[in-house]
Amino acid sequence: MKALVLSSGGVDSTTALGLAVKKYGKENVIALSVSYGQKHDKEIRAAIAVAEYYGVEQLFLDLSKIFQYSNCSLLQQSAEEIPEASYAEQISQTEGEKPVSTYVPFRNGLFLSSAASIALSKECEVICYGAHADDSAGFAYPDCSPVFNNAMNEAIWEGSGHQLRVEAPFVNVTKAEVVRMGLELQVPYELTWSCYEGSEKPCGRCGTCIDRAAAFQANHVADPALR
Amino acid sequence: MKALVLSSGGVDSTTALGLAVKKYGKENVIALSVSYGQKHDKEIRAAIAVAEYYGVEQLFLDLSKIFQYSNCSLLQQSAEEIPEASYAEQISQTEGEKPVSTYVPFRNGLFLSSAASIALSKECEVICYGAHADDSAGFAYPDCSPVFNNAMNEAIWEGSGHQLRVEAPFVNVTKAEVVRMGLELQVPYELTWSCYEGSEKPCGRCGTCIDRAAAFQANHVADPALR
Repeated sequence: MKALVLSSGGVDSTTALGLAVKKYGKENVIALSVSYGQKHDKEIRAAIAVAEYYGVEQLFLDLSKIFQYSNCSLLQQSAEEIPEASYAEQISQTEGEKPVSTYVPFRNGLFLSSAASIALSKECEVICYGAHADDSAGFAYPDCSPVFNNAMNEAIWEGSGHQLRVEAPFVNVTKAEVVRMGLELQVPYELTWSCYEGSEKPCGRCGTCIDRAAAFQANHVADPALR
Repeated sequence: MKALVLSSGGVDSTTALGLAVKKYGKENVIALSVSYGQKHDKEIRAAIAVAEYYGVEQLFLDLSKIFQYSNCSLLQQSAEEIPEASYAEQISQTEGEKPVSTYVPFRNGLFLSSAASIALSKECEVICYGAHADDSAGFAYPDCSPVFNNAMNEAIWEGSGHQLRVEAPFVNVTKAEVVRMGLELQVPYELTWSCYEGSEKPCGRCGTCIDRAAAFQANHVADPALR
């Protein structure tokens, strides 16, 4: 069985890729890396290093035009600052009623749909992605939630004529648990990039830097990307 | 309330656009027309004429790269012939167990997801598209079925943080009924294009030509595009 894995170069998707390589074998895994108009290309460069490490085929897609009308703070055209706060702090500001400012509109739905179209052409029977429970908490990223994932899986299963399904192995687990699983799998976290800013080193202050640090701390391990 | 309507220049989506204009007002409707690597550009030219007729804003998107690995017979890179048979005849060949050769992999899922990302940025609360019951019959186009539509609607509702939903006004009605509704709405069918081939006039032999002709015949009306 062949699997297409959404691979952003970050901790979660790299762990999902590691799991898929273990489960399906590297010759049956394709990594798909999507540009969506981020303010920097660090993520894609990390995704390339990760795919090389695992020795899997890698495909690229540029979907930035679809987001050209968005004011999401992660995107090149946005003048909005990327918040220097954990997701938990940001959620308390939005009162858990709307997505955070780094929510890219329906990004995971679009990425999964694009992956579905490609997977069907490349004879894959499964798509994997790294959504996890911390990202969907408090409505921060609603396109990471279990209810979204279940609906998307059904849409892809039904819309493909029962040829393709979605695997989201972390949808009910925390980022700390993702890292615990990844450490066991010897995922090359030293190659990954999470920071929303594009400086030489991770900023340590944006939501994803804060959450990444907490996930390694919970496992009593130094983040190998910071060595 | 603002609506984004998937507009391909064919009978079904043009009727969906006519309905949306009546329901939401033309100033609140945006047409989205997607190129996906078709063998001709007749559809897009028809979609432009239709959007001009209704006086609505129109956006364009080229998603052909996503389908570059597909062997679907509608696509430029495919050497496969477009079948000269009705969908019903094609379904009898596939025994209703797999999509027909003109199924573009997960096209409607991808189009709806792209529409969702754009709709959220353009402050629309609804996406409309023209999937109808004849297209999903016998598994011909599984991404036109009610069960697909329901799942996709839920994925978009949940994945957008309850900001956006999908309207598929024809998902349970036949193409003949779509045309009946469109004739009442005075939809400009003379501007539309359905044929899978890109000749000067519709071929009259491909699946969509046959189904279009039957839908007008059922309404005892000559197809205005053939005058």
